[in-house]
Amino acid sequence: MTLTNQYEQAINEALASMNFPANPAELYDPIRYTLENGGKRMRPQLVLMAADLISGDFKSSIQPALGIETFHNFTLLHDDIMDNAPLRRGHDTVHVKWNSNIAILSGDVMFVEACRLMSAAPNHALNKVLQVFYKAAIEVCEGQQYDMNFEQLDNVHIEEYIDMIRLKTAVLLGASMQIGALCARAVDEDAALLYDFGCHLGIAFQLMDDILDVYGDPAKFGKQVGGDILANKKTYLSIQAFEKAEGNIKEALVRWYSTRDLDLAKVVHVTELFDTLKVRQDAEAEIESHYALAIAALDKLNAPSERKAHVYAFAERLMQREK
Amino acid sequence: MTLTNQYEQAINEALASMNFPANPAELYDPIRYTLENGGKRMRPQLVLMAADLISGDFKSSIQPALGIETFHNFTLLHDDIMDNAPLRRGHDTVHVKWNSNIAILSGDVMFVEACRLMSAAPNHALNKVLQVFYKAAIEVCEGQQYDMNFEQLDNVHIEEYIDMIRLKTAVLLGASMQIGALCARAVDEDAALLYDFGCHLGIAFQLMDDILDVYGDPAKFGKQVGGDILANKKTYLSIQAFEKAEGNIKEALVRWYSTRDLDLAKVVHVTELFDTLKVRQDAEAEIESHYALAIAALDKLNAPSERKAHVYAFAERLMQREK
Repeated sequence: MTLTNQYEQAINEALASMNFPANPAELYDPIRYTLENGGKRMRPQLVLMAADLISGDFKSSIQPALGIETFHNFTLLHDDIMDNAPLRRGHDTVHVKWNSNIAILSGDVMFVEACRLMSAAPNHALNKVLQVFYKAAIEVCEGQQYDMNFEQLDNVHIEEYIDMIRLKTAVLLGASMQIGALCARAVDEDAALLYDFGCHLGIAFQLMDDILDVYGDPAKFGKQVGGDILANKKTYLSIQAFEKAEGNIKEALVRWYSTRDLDLAKVVHVTELFDTLKVRQDAEAEIESHYALAIAALDKLNAPSERKAHVYAFAERLMQREK
Repeated sequence: MTLTNQYEQAINEALASMNFPANPAELYDPIRYTLENGGKRMRPQLVLMAADLISGDFKSSIQPALGIETFHNFTLLHDDIMDNAPLRRGHDTVHVKWNSNIAILSGDVMFVEACRLMSAAPNHALNKVLQVFYKAAIEVCEGQQYDMNFEQLDNVHIEEYIDMIRLKTAVLLGASMQIGALCARAVDEDAALLYDFGCHLGIAFQLMDDILDVYGDPAKFGKQVGGDILANKKTYLSIQAFEKAEGNIKEALVRWYSTRDLDLAKVVHVTELFDTLKVRQDAEAEIESHYALAIAALDKLNAPSERKAHVYAFAERLMQREK
């Protein structure tokens, strides 16, 4: 069994053994529904991978790994209310299937459960693990708030956008690695390097998502290609395009982004404008630079090279998602 | 300075020194607004009182006391969204002054801050304090869910109602005492006795609120007398009245509780029905029994009697709110 498969199996077993009360059903049914609704379970895998990298054993961090996954699913639950999203991973969101009040409150309970799981970190690491977790939790909320603010703004700079995705997505990946490392008795410097690794990888991953939304293979991407363009969503590509465009091209961009058209012609034309402005290349350069920072952090880490090899391979696989 | 004043001063100083970032303002302004909006600060006082009772010193539990107060205010913030409440302590609720999304997300951040403050408990007590806090936090959410469920039900039994107020209100008072005690190195048995003390006192306190809403002196109660009756709210009095009533009286009760009239005549007539059924006396007997359980727990507690005297006096004062 590969390491990845071992991690997956440990996570799935631990998830299956989570036991929520039957009542009140309005509170616990949505939690079971949310946690059973799949997802890649990437964050708990990062926790276990980091622990395994440091100590050759990941058992001590399984509960905190579940805590991270539970927290992540809690944020999705509350974000879906705020974004008025009807679907999550192909299923009705909780606020649609039940209602907003139930989504708020069952989310709150999930958050407490996440904290409880996190507090099962080994005693030697408990204080540090909690501080890393709380910091990331607050930053994830800040990121969500900036994301909502950006929807209302005409001008968002590319640095602000990258900082938003860092907060909303990347810090939790960094914290996952750092927490796994701390559980496995990493020294603070190594745990911090793994935070940097996870965080930069997270930014690169999220920027790749922006590219895939426009340039991905529809058969492999799993979402509608061009969805961000149709929704006038601010992404690395659109923000960079607005920053670079001048004259006719700027006018065309402004025109397309002021319509609420759900016409596929819009996707075709905006993609052409992106091509002309070479913003995909800009995004790829940004991805490369964050990927290089992630790898540099891993290079510096003091751990046996045979164990590091698995983490390098993981990072590489992550960067080779289908485009 | 009385002990109560010392506790108040310590809490107010600690609250004033809490420092939230300026940005994103949409996240932190509502938190400042909520925490500055007053309230009796009863829960943090219970934390300090318990610590002082056990060790003669309350300094070690100031951060957890703030954590309890921050958690309590977080629950009010989210409850006000769910209950669609326009006002809290005479001011616009956060979801009215800003919007629901901001109320959800700033509430989430308050909860993380509450956890962070709680994690500043002395290291010797950290694990136990966290488990007591998480358990209470989950029970408070369960209580809120039962409260919402009860609004939709015709038949709620008096035991279910008492269990709801236990979860929604009383366990957090119990947990406040227990956490203060644990921070002050109480043995587990004594900390558990103080939990029982706070919890039974909390049930008594909440039942008194039900009585005051109908029989309170309008000048002293601070809310509209009869508000619960006008809103057809399930309280100890109304549930007990429905359980006891028969014949004409039952019919009259059903009739009044099926109108949405905001007529003061409704308050007068329903109060007469309550009088006839002697449900106030039932509520007072229930209060007495919980008060007696609270005092019995305090009696059993192993602590110097001169320090216990203050806690007995506190309990007595609480039971002598203006009726």
